[in-house]
Amino acid sequence: MDPAPPTSPSADPAPRTLRVDGDVVRTVDQARLPFEHVEVVLADAADCARAIATMQVRGAPLIGAVAGFGLAFALRAADDDAALDAAVARLASTRPTAVNLRWALERIRAVVRPLPPGSRAAAARTEAIAIADEDVAINRAIGAHGVAMLRGAAVRRAADGRPVGPGAPLQVLTHCNAGRLAAVAHGTALAPLYALHAAGVPLHVWVDETRPRNQGASLTAWELADAGVPCTVIADNAGGQLMREGRVDAAIVGCDRVARNGDVANKIGTYLKALAARDAGVPFWVACPTPTIDAAMPDGAAIPIEARDPRELTHASGRAADGRVLEVRLVPDGVAAFNPAFDVTPARLVDALLTEHGVVSADADGIARALRAAGRAVPA
Amino acid sequence: MDPAPPTSPSADPAPRTLRVDGDVVRTVDQARLPFEHVEVVLADAADCARAIATMQVRGAPLIGAVAGFGLAFALRAADDDAALDAAVARLASTRPTAVNLRWALERIRAVVRPLPPGSRAAAARTEAIAIADEDVAINRAIGAHGVAMLRGAAVRRAADGRPVGPGAPLQVLTHCNAGRLAAVAHGTALAPLYALHAAGVPLHVWVDETRPRNQGASLTAWELADAGVPCTVIADNAGGQLMREGRVDAAIVGCDRVARNGDVANKIGTYLKALAARDAGVPFWVACPTPTIDAAMPDGAAIPIEARDPRELTHASGRAADGRVLEVRLVPDGVAAFNPAFDVTPARLVDALLTEHGVVSADADGIARALRAAGRAVPA
Repeated sequence: MDPAPPTSPSADPAPRTLRVDGDVVRTVDQARLPFEHVEVVLADAADCARAIATMQVRGAPLIGAVAGFGLAFALRAADDDAALDAAVARLASTRPTAVNLRWALERIRAVVRPLPPGSRAAAARTEAIAIADEDVAINRAIGAHGVAMLRGAAVRRAADGRPVGPGAPLQVLTHCNAGRLAAVAHGTALAPLYALHAAGVPLHVWVDETRPRNQGASLTAWELADAGVPCTVIADNAGGQLMREGRVDAAIVGCDRVARNGDVANKIGTYLKALAARDAGVPFWVACPTPTIDAAMPDGAAIPIEARDPRELTHASGRAADGRVLEVRLVPDGVAAFNPAFDVTPARLVDALLTEHGVVSADADGIARALRAAGRAVPA
Repeated sequence: MDPAPPTSPSADPAPRTLRVDGDVVRTVDQARLPFEHVEVVLADAADCARAIATMQVRGAPLIGAVAGFGLAFALRAADDDAALDAAVARLASTRPTAVNLRWALERIRAVVRPLPPGSRAAAARTEAIAIADEDVAINRAIGAHGVAMLRGAAVRRAADGRPVGPGAPLQVLTHCNAGRLAAVAHGTALAPLYALHAAGVPLHVWVDETRPRNQGASLTAWELADAGVPCTVIADNAGGQLMREGRVDAAIVGCDRVARNGDVANKIGTYLKALAARDAGVPFWVACPTPTIDAAMPDGAAIPIEARDPRELTHASGRAADGRVLEVRLVPDGVAAFNPAFDVTPARLVDALLTEHGVVSADADGIARALRAAGRAVPA
C-alpha cells in the first residue's frame, strides 16, 4: 500500500475541471458538452446545488469538490450550527447515490463545527480547496497503479501470441465518463489510459455511449479525442459481443459508491458489462478513490439507487443539421419511462479496485486495507 | 410437438403489417414510426430490397415475407434461371444476419425452378402469399405456447408469496421489437404478451429502448400502448438492475437466426440481458419460428454479424419541440463509432425456445425436434 499519493498536486500541470477564482468557482457546463462549451460560475450554495442536481457537474469526485465549495458559500451567509446542518442536508440531497458528496460535506462539517461563528466560512473554503487538490493527487496515483495493471494485460496478450504494437493497440472498454470531467483533474478510470497513452503504448478505447445521458458518447469521447487517445463510440448494447469476439483486453470503470464488501454502485449498465467481462474472461477493474468507499454500507443491497427524470430517457439532446443544439423526443407520446441512474455490480464480478494507495481485491479485506492506508477507520 | 399451427390464418382477425393489394404490397415505413405513420408501397424488387436495407421493414419474419414478394416482382421482369439466381442473390445481400430472408428466397426458388419461364412470377407470388399467411399462423401458435410458459411463471411467483393480480402484474422484459411490426401479424416475442393480456392476466412489460435504432422505444412501446398493454420504456442499461431487484418475472426476445446447437443471433444487447437473467434467476426465453432456425449453421460462432452505418449510432431521430421530426447528432465531430447490429447469445443462457410446434430446449436435441415437427431435414 502506498501511504499517500506520491506527488504534490500543486506541481501537477494537468488541466483542471474546477478552478477557484477569487470569490467564485468556475467549471464547464457538462450538460451542454460536446457541442457547446459554456463556463458555469458558481457563486453561492444554490448555484452549487443546482449544478449538481442538473448534472452541469457530474462524476463522484467532482460532485464532492463542488459540494465542498457549496458548503463554504452557504456559511458565508449564515454559519451558526443550525445553518451548517441545514446547508449540509440541502447539498447532500442533490444526488442520493454519490457518496463523495456526503464524505466531503461531513469532512468540512467536522473541521468547522469546533470553530467559532465568524471564522467558519473561511475554514470551509480552505478545506474545500484541500479536497479539490487531494482529488488531483488521488487520481494521478490511480493512474500510475492502473498503468501497471494495463501493462500486465499487454504482457498476457503477448503471451497469447497477440502482442500489443503499432496497428494492434491494447483494447480497453469503459462505461460512462470517469475522465477528467468527472473529477478535478485526471479522472479516475481514464487516468490510467491517459498515462498509458502518454507512455507511448498503443491504445484504443471502446467508449460505451452510456444512455440515457450519453456521457460516454458526449464526454468520454470528447475527452479522449481531445487528448489524442484513439477511441470508438459503441452502443451500450455492443460491449458484450466485442468481449466475446476477443476484442477487449480489459474493462475499467469508475464508481459512485463502494460498499464495505466491495459491491460497486456505478452508472446504470455497469453491471451488464461486468457480467459480460466475467463470461468472456476479460478483466474488469473499478477505479476507486478511497473517498468513494462508504465504510458505513455493509453491502450494495442497501445503496440507494437514484431514479432520475424520465425525460432524460424519452428525449435526447444533440446538434441538428442547421447547427442548432436542441432536444428531440424519442418515445411515443403517452408512454411511460423509468430511469434508474445507477446499478450495483456485485463484488464477485470485480477483479480489482484501483485505489490511490494501490490495487486491492473487491472484498472486505481489500476495502479494509484501502481504508487503513487512507487513515480511515475500518468498521468491525 | 404440435404437428402444425392450429388455426387457419385466413380466419385470423389480427391486424397485418403487410397487405397484398392487387399488383403491389403495402406496409408502414417503420423508420418513421412512432411520430409519422407513412405507408410504403412496394411495387418492384428494388422497392423491396430498399425497404429491407434501410429498415423501413425489419424483423426476421417480415423481412422474409417482403423478400418473397421482392423475388416475385423480380421474376415479372425476367424469369430465366440467370435472372432468378441474380434476384435471389441481390435480395439475400440486403441483411446478412437474417436467415428468414434466405429461407424465403430459397423456398420460392425451389418452387419456381422446375416451372417453365412465363409461369414463374405468378407461382412465386402465390408462394410469397403462402409464406406470409404461414407467418401469421406460426406466430399465433407461438403466442399460445408462450402463454402457457407465462402462466407457469405466474404460478411460480404465487408460490413465492407474490401472486399476480390487480396492482401486481406479471413483469416481462423484452428487447428490440419482436411484435406485430416485426412480422406479418402477431409478432413473435410479443405474441404471448398480447394473448396473455387478452386473457385478462395483469401484465406489465419493461421495454428496452434498444439502441442504436430505438426499436423498443419507438416500435414496441407504440405497439403495446396501441394494444392497451401497460408498458414502461427503460434504457438498455437498466434491465440488469431491475432483474437483480426482483422486478422481472421473465424475459422474452425474438431472434434473427438460430444455430443448430441453439445459439441465438438477435439484436445487439440480447446477450447482456441473457447474462443478467441467468445471474438473477430470471427465465430467458426466445420466440423462435422454425424458419429462423439455420440448420446449416452448427453454432453461433459462424453467424455473420452485420455492421451497420455508424450514423445510426452517432445520430438520433425524434420529434423537436416545434413538432418537426428531425435528426440530431449525439457524438462529437470527428469521433468514430462502430455499430454491430446483432450479437450471439450462447445456447447455455437460453432457458427455452418458443416455436410454433411447441417449447423446446435450446440445444441440438431441441432444435432437431423443432425441425422434424416442421418437416425439415435434420443435419447429422
